[in-house]
Amino acid sequence: MKQGDETRATVRDVAARTGLSIATVSRVLNGRANVAPATRERVLATIAELGRGAPRRRGERATGIYVRCPYVLTDYFGLIVSAVAEALEPHGLQVILNAGVAAQRDHVLTALTGRRDVAGAVLILPPEPGAELARLRDRGFPFVVLDPRTPPPRNLAAVSAAHFSGARQLAAHLIGLGHRRIGIIGGPRDWLAGENRFAGYLSPLADAGVLPAPELTRFVAEPTSELGHRAAAELLDLPERPTALLAFNDKIAIGALRAAAERGLRVPADLSVAGFDDIELGRACRPMLTTVRQPLEEMGRMAVHLLLRMLGGHRLDALHVELATELVIRDSTGPVPDVFHGSGTGVPRSGTPSH
Amino acid sequence: MKQGDETRATVRDVAARTGLSIATVSRVLNGRANVAPATRERVLATIAELGRGAPRRRGERATGIYVRCPYVLTDYFGLIVSAVAEALEPHGLQVILNAGVAAQRDHVLTALTGRRDVAGAVLILPPEPGAELARLRDRGFPFVVLDPRTPPPRNLAAVSAAHFSGARQLAAHLIGLGHRRIGIIGGPRDWLAGENRFAGYLSPLADAGVLPAPELTRFVAEPTSELGHRAAAELLDLPERPTALLAFNDKIAIGALRAAAERGLRVPADLSVAGFDDIELGRACRPMLTTVRQPLEEMGRMAVHLLLRMLGGHRLDALHVELATELVIRDSTGPVPDVFHGSGTGVPRSGTPSH
Repeated sequence: MKQGDETRATVRDVAARTGLSIATVSRVLNGRANVAPATRERVLATIAELGRGAPRRRGERATGIYVRCPYVLTDYFGLIVSAVAEALEPHGLQVILNAGVAAQRDHVLTALTGRRDVAGAVLILPPEPGAELARLRDRGFPFVVLDPRTPPPRNLAAVSAAHFSGARQLAAHLIGLGHRRIGIIGGPRDWLAGENRFAGYLSPLADAGVLPAPELTRFVAEPTSELGHRAAAELLDLPERPTALLAFNDKIAIGALRAAAERGLRVPADLSVAGFDDIELGRACRPMLTTVRQPLEEMGRMAVHLLLRMLGGHRLDALHVELATELVIRDSTGPVPDVFHGSGTGVPRSGTPSH
Repeated sequence: MKQGDETRATVRDVAARTGLSIATVSRVLNGRANVAPATRERVLATIAELGRGAPRRRGERATGIYVRCPYVLTDYFGLIVSAVAEALEPHGLQVILNAGVAAQRDHVLTALTGRRDVAGAVLILPPEPGAELARLRDRGFPFVVLDPRTPPPRNLAAVSAAHFSGARQLAAHLIGLGHRRIGIIGGPRDWLAGENRFAGYLSPLADAGVLPAPELTRFVAEPTSELGHRAAAELLDLPERPTALLAFNDKIAIGALRAAAERGLRVPADLSVAGFDDIELGRACRPMLTTVRQPLEEMGRMAVHLLLRMLGGHRLDALHVELATELVIRDSTGPVPDVFHGSGTGVPRSGTPSH
């Protein structure tokens, strides 16, 4: 996994070989958008032929770690990126940050191997461009995928949270409270976390003999409280509404709390609501959310740890690291309401929960 | 404000002149902590004598913008830093990030001028090290202080929010609702924002003929919901409690909402609570917070705009830019309770509000 500096080509070499200007080659290497795709490909192919980019000076080593997180750095991604920055610092490595929603348009991955200042990368990505990641790996560029959106290929280093087991524990908690008619608001269908949490939610239901009910399931395209609010409203307006809602994440659950409040439903007396992630929002809302804690900071530190081992030329025994999640029971979940004695909400119910 | 590349010294030059190793000189230039202060000073003094660091290659320009934000990147700082990253990207500039609470220990500012990869900086800082900032400026290094903690010197570029006028509007809103016995939970006393918001809170009170009451004022060392909760509890347990609380920020206000709920006080029927910042937490809590919106993203974009002008060698006419804030009235503030007809809370009140 070590980079052989002696094999690196110069920007000048690449310009000469391709017949392009130094400025154009630099634009490609810096991942700039204003380059024709064909030109980009020509530059990258030439670099691959020549070696691995421009040589470093004697006695210097690259100290930049490229951190890509094309999302707004708030309480979820911001915590991860802060932990990555803090973990890199004591090793004399610095974060070169590519962040914000606008960064989703950047094409930066393939150019990373050509950069003199970049030693490796920690990548938080939109649904992963598998071909680009495979190319990076084939060139021996050290990187770790953090919180992958799609299942990471076997031979890439990746750190994620144990979505499935966390979701399973959460659903089992609701089953234990007597809930059987459970609505699920799932996340984006092309996200690994969405798929795994959904499977985790279904598993204890199946164990309890409850078949998944399509009318009790919704999926959101983006995990926001607005879309969560809308999906929860649909589920709560069903003739026979669920007694509990399992949300893909805390933001969706907070939207669900709002939908419940608008309908005069008391949480948890009339309706239990649970989220996932344990972000600060879920502790600020009332009732405080029952959720599954993702070890976000630990995930950032673990990604740095794996990357440092790769930079040091060590073999990684386990390329995929999954960190345990933790069920956090707070105030938004409670026993299933006893509908036979009236729920006391004044909200009409057209039926009894199915068992 | 342009950097003259022709005058830059090499790391080798500095090592030769100081008698230190190249590795030690590099450690200083990279802002590493494991260098004796005397050694650091010697290196920096030598660089100042020789020029401004190591020369760049012909045809290359530095593309790194050093962004220092020694706080966790959550809904406040994360929004600012994301906006900075997004605004730099279209200009081919990239963020070199120094972030996280651990970064408060780093001594990085004085070494910035020696770095070949850094063209300028956007600095969000703990109470600003004035001497270091002055030294950076004296060396012609382009930088902008964003959201300054202490009043920025006249000749430094700085972007901040209009704390005073925003706080004034908020306090006037409460006065308009009839509140006179208003508790204030101020921020850290050495923060510019703390001082300005506090002054803004007092001003409409003075206009209404209410003298500031020391027993109704608390200051927190860190603006967290935990410390806000504690300070609010003290104010609400006063024999004659306030009818409204003005908090330094939303997190403190959320702590105050919790203290109110624990005492059976209804917000806003029995107590009005207001924050500052308009972070997402304040929209997720119930009741939703009345607050003052800081244009966090716009502040980040404005800092980049000023920096780009400096990098382009332009003169800045206005070095200090203050962006307008906006009063956002939501559900946590309401008319002063009519104590003469009973507040209906069951909470004993030992007196009537002072006028």
